[in-house]
Amino acid sequence: MKTIRSPRQMQSLALAWRRAGKTVGLVPTMGALHEGHLSLVRRARAENEIVVVSIFVNPAQFGPKEDYLRYPRPFAKDKRLCERAGVNVVFSPSPSAMYAEGHDTWVTVEKLSRPLCGAFRPGHFRGVATVVAKLFNLVQPARAYFGMKDFQQMCIIERMAEDLHMPVKIVRCPILRDPGGLALSSRNAYLAPQERQAARNISLALRAAEEVIKSHARVPSAKVTAAAWSILRKIPGMRLDYLSVADPATLEPLALVRGRALVAAALWIGNTRLIDNRLVRN
Amino acid sequence: MKTIRSPRQMQSLALAWRRAGKTVGLVPTMGALHEGHLSLVRRARAENEIVVVSIFVNPAQFGPKEDYLRYPRPFAKDKRLCERAGVNVVFSPSPSAMYAEGHDTWVTVEKLSRPLCGAFRPGHFRGVATVVAKLFNLVQPARAYFGMKDFQQMCIIERMAEDLHMPVKIVRCPILRDPGGLALSSRNAYLAPQERQAARNISLALRAAEEVIKSHARVPSAKVTAAAWSILRKIPGMRLDYLSVADPATLEPLALVRGRALVAAALWIGNTRLIDNRLVRN
Repeated sequence: MKTIRSPRQMQSLALAWRRAGKTVGLVPTMGALHEGHLSLVRRARAENEIVVVSIFVNPAQFGPKEDYLRYPRPFAKDKRLCERAGVNVVFSPSPSAMYAEGHDTWVTVEKLSRPLCGAFRPGHFRGVATVVAKLFNLVQPARAYFGMKDFQQMCIIERMAEDLHMPVKIVRCPILRDPGGLALSSRNAYLAPQERQAARNISLALRAAEEVIKSHARVPSAKVTAAAWSILRKIPGMRLDYLSVADPATLEPLALVRGRALVAAALWIGNTRLIDNRLVRN
Repeated sequence: MKTIRSPRQMQSLALAWRRAGKTVGLVPTMGALHEGHLSLVRRARAENEIVVVSIFVNPAQFGPKEDYLRYPRPFAKDKRLCERAGVNVVFSPSPSAMYAEGHDTWVTVEKLSRPLCGAFRPGHFRGVATVVAKLFNLVQPARAYFGMKDFQQMCIIERMAEDLHMPVKIVRCPILRDPGGLALSSRNAYLAPQERQAARNISLALRAAEEVIKSHARVPSAKVTAAAWSILRKIPGMRLDYLSVADPATLEPLALVRGRALVAAALWIGNTRLIDNRLVRN
């Protein structure tokens, strides 16, 4: 396994792979890898000749008061995990190499960036779309793997790739959960044991919402969120950003659910912001 | 020579060329080709194995009151000119194929889009950057050719390509002029004979500005623009958008010129908006 820090070197290698007709699978990450990431890596490993994992804590997707500086960076451990999973290249550029002096270009996916997390994290998805556009140009993947836990991010990347005619297939990968149901996230490392215990109520709440949807042919969203809220509200000291029943294509709120919906929540436990969702199909 | 309308077909061919190790030169145009375009095509022909000319009147770069509908579209003639110049593929997609239902992604180069034409054509450069990003993904060029008449556009594309790490070299091509000095432009076709005659004063004015710069080691911009204005003002019925002495890298106005500057003008003669510039090096 190779570790590459230079964007130019990454791109030369990617263009050589392309000329050699090799298909590349990219798993873009911010590091602090967990089993969720590794499930993406395994899928990429199965579907491509070359697997690249990018590890880059992207400053442009953090707000000024967010956790950019304290975001975990266990680079040596991440590399070991990648090596064991059969990754060919870990691409880990510096912020100044990815955002050179005078950087002035931004990719925005406008409507999809407004609801859900977009309303609470201004500029976040612009930072995400921009860095992923860079990574696609540097790594030239045939397929790129995104976890459904970051459902809005995944939708935005799908839209960007389609709108800009990028020659890459975006592969949706299911959420992985710990035995208590908590969706795997690098930010779970911030949680104290009691907070972690309490955070399990998030997936319980989303499952309760799903039950309401599945047991009605049509149901007002308010009934769905009420079921989830009755569980979420028990989390001590929890602060809710949103609890939304949304159209899975537009991410806009649904007033009435007819079987197919995204139930999504974002909330704070202590200083940790957690998100989770369930895509309900009937 | 092949004419391709489908973006998907264009991309398949481009990816096949890439696998075959062929270098592609792209000349993006809105059609209504003149000698200026053809000079770009000839340069592309000399430097690449494959030459693609895109012909696409991009709706996203026209304002609601601009000339999108009346923009000239002499497609049969354009194709003949391309064929004669040794072009391999004319790529001419439909607006609905380039901007599919639900299109929501925009590329912006923020600071460079503000001065000069940016102040008069809101959204114009966002439309330009977005369509060029699409074209680069569809055609996969190693080199793309831009005329210096659209100096701000060229700078924005250069910035975008660098910032997003696009694997393409942007090639700057000099302005071509008619025997009277008028910079070649598809919009010159809008001019009545007397207007065309009057329009020659634009290049005379810019040359006068250049003379002032070249004859002083340092000179206030106001003296430079005064020399140009004394000529421009003679054009009957002319309306000025701007006459600017700018830093050729940032495009921001210079107060004092020390030998290196962009002198740029945009103005209306009748219903025709014309732009021209001179890049002055000392």
